[in-house]
Amino acid sequence: MAGLSIRPVEGLPEIRPGDDLAAMIVASTEPLHDRDVVVVAQKVVSKSEGRVVALSTVTPGDRALAMAAESGKDARALEVVLGETRQIVRWAHGVLIAETHHGFVCANAGVDRSNAGAPDTVVLLPVDPDASARRLRDAFKARSGRDVAVLVTDTFGRAWREGHVNVAIGIAGMPALRRYVGQYDPEGYELRVTEIALADEIAGAAELVMGKLDRCPVAVVRGLALEAADDTAREYVRPKEKDLFR
Amino acid sequence: MAGLSIRPVEGLPEIRPGDDLAAMIVASTEPLHDRDVVVVAQKVVSKSEGRVVALSTVTPGDRALAMAAESGKDARALEVVLGETRQIVRWAHGVLIAETHHGFVCANAGVDRSNAGAPDTVVLLPVDPDASARRLRDAFKARSGRDVAVLVTDTFGRAWREGHVNVAIGIAGMPALRRYVGQYDPEGYELRVTEIALADEIAGAAELVMGKLDRCPVAVVRGLALEAADDTAREYVRPKEKDLFR
Repeated sequence: MAGLSIRPVEGLPEIRPGDDLAAMIVASTEPLHDRDVVVVAQKVVSKSEGRVVALSTVTPGDRALAMAAESGKDARALEVVLGETRQIVRWAHGVLIAETHHGFVCANAGVDRSNAGAPDTVVLLPVDPDASARRLRDAFKARSGRDVAVLVTDTFGRAWREGHVNVAIGIAGMPALRRYVGQYDPEGYELRVTEIALADEIAGAAELVMGKLDRCPVAVVRGLALEAADDTAREYVRPKEKDLFR
Repeated sequence: MAGLSIRPVEGLPEIRPGDDLAAMIVASTEPLHDRDVVVVAQKVVSKSEGRVVALSTVTPGDRALAMAAESGKDARALEVVLGETRQIVRWAHGVLIAETHHGFVCANAGVDRSNAGAPDTVVLLPVDPDASARRLRDAFKARSGRDVAVLVTDTFGRAWREGHVNVAIGIAGMPALRRYVGQYDPEGYELRVTEIALADEIAGAAELVMGKLDRCPVAVVRGLALEAADDTAREYVRPKEKDLFR
């Protein structure tokens, strides 16, 4: 195997609702190749899709007001978070870990105030990040003629381990998981680790060149011998009844 | 930023206790550069350090026998796992999530039967994976003259998300975390994600070229502008009192 390369896409302007993100990426990067993986931070996808809320437009409800009183957090921001939440997984010491409507478990249901592009504004996760990834993939095909995979990513915290890692919340054109089920080592033992979270590892790899401060929300990963697949990031959602940590 | 490259180190033989792993890696790879990150799978590190147990030598105690009766698992393997365990975090449906003596939370306290190199044998995590990484780093310096960082890695499952990802359990010569604490976006908001698990993301990136079936346990990551640091992988261990999922 010749190895991988991971390159940042630099020079993108601030993204606004309605922007043609795929066109802007194609204009900012060297030519795409077939089977490249284009990794795009959720924040620019959400902004281009208008998933941005000015807090001045939000009226907090009773629950958000109570949580704000308890924690000192902004009640309007909590109201937006609760709107994105299917179920609160933990609420303690002002930390809110929530299951989003997509099924992802993350802080504040993915609602974030930093790098929102305007004051007193929050950015939400895309309504359907897999659909966002598919639209970008189709747009890259239309604009560059290349058949690439696309990941929409966000940085999530983990249980037990400090630090956040970038993970895939939307996938198009590649497998979510590399499956070793039913494969055996040279001694005949079935492999213990039967599923590698391939797209999550690619998301983390891309984050290494994507800056949070220097406006570099896109990277291109080249050299992976990926099969085509129609997987979505929903493959990562562990069914509640299988999860020992809910 | 010019981007990263990630290359597998191929052609390593089966590793045996006492093998000079650093010498074998230097002999198998193109010349190392200063600031490369050499990512080494725990299994070959453990094997070179003799952290291998033949199950025929193990006498299970009462607790392992009870757990084996409950789950149908091998009592001798469970005995080894319990010896590596500081605290059982979950034991349900035959799945054992344990805190290791290092403080890591993972399945079976990191004890693994696949790719053990011999039948009825299990491989344990290194006693001190940070020390293993430091020894490898020193040996690379001695043998190649290059000042590289080293990660010792293993594939861990996660709460809430399906699939395993490769993470760093031993670190030498680089920071564990990229810290954004006290840094602000263009609108003046402090960044929400204040710590990125840099070494974990590098571990995952390297895994993309490291095969579980084709004996490729080492990769070289080039192009990261890493500061020197004396961090260890213990930086990832979240203190129990801060952890909402224990």
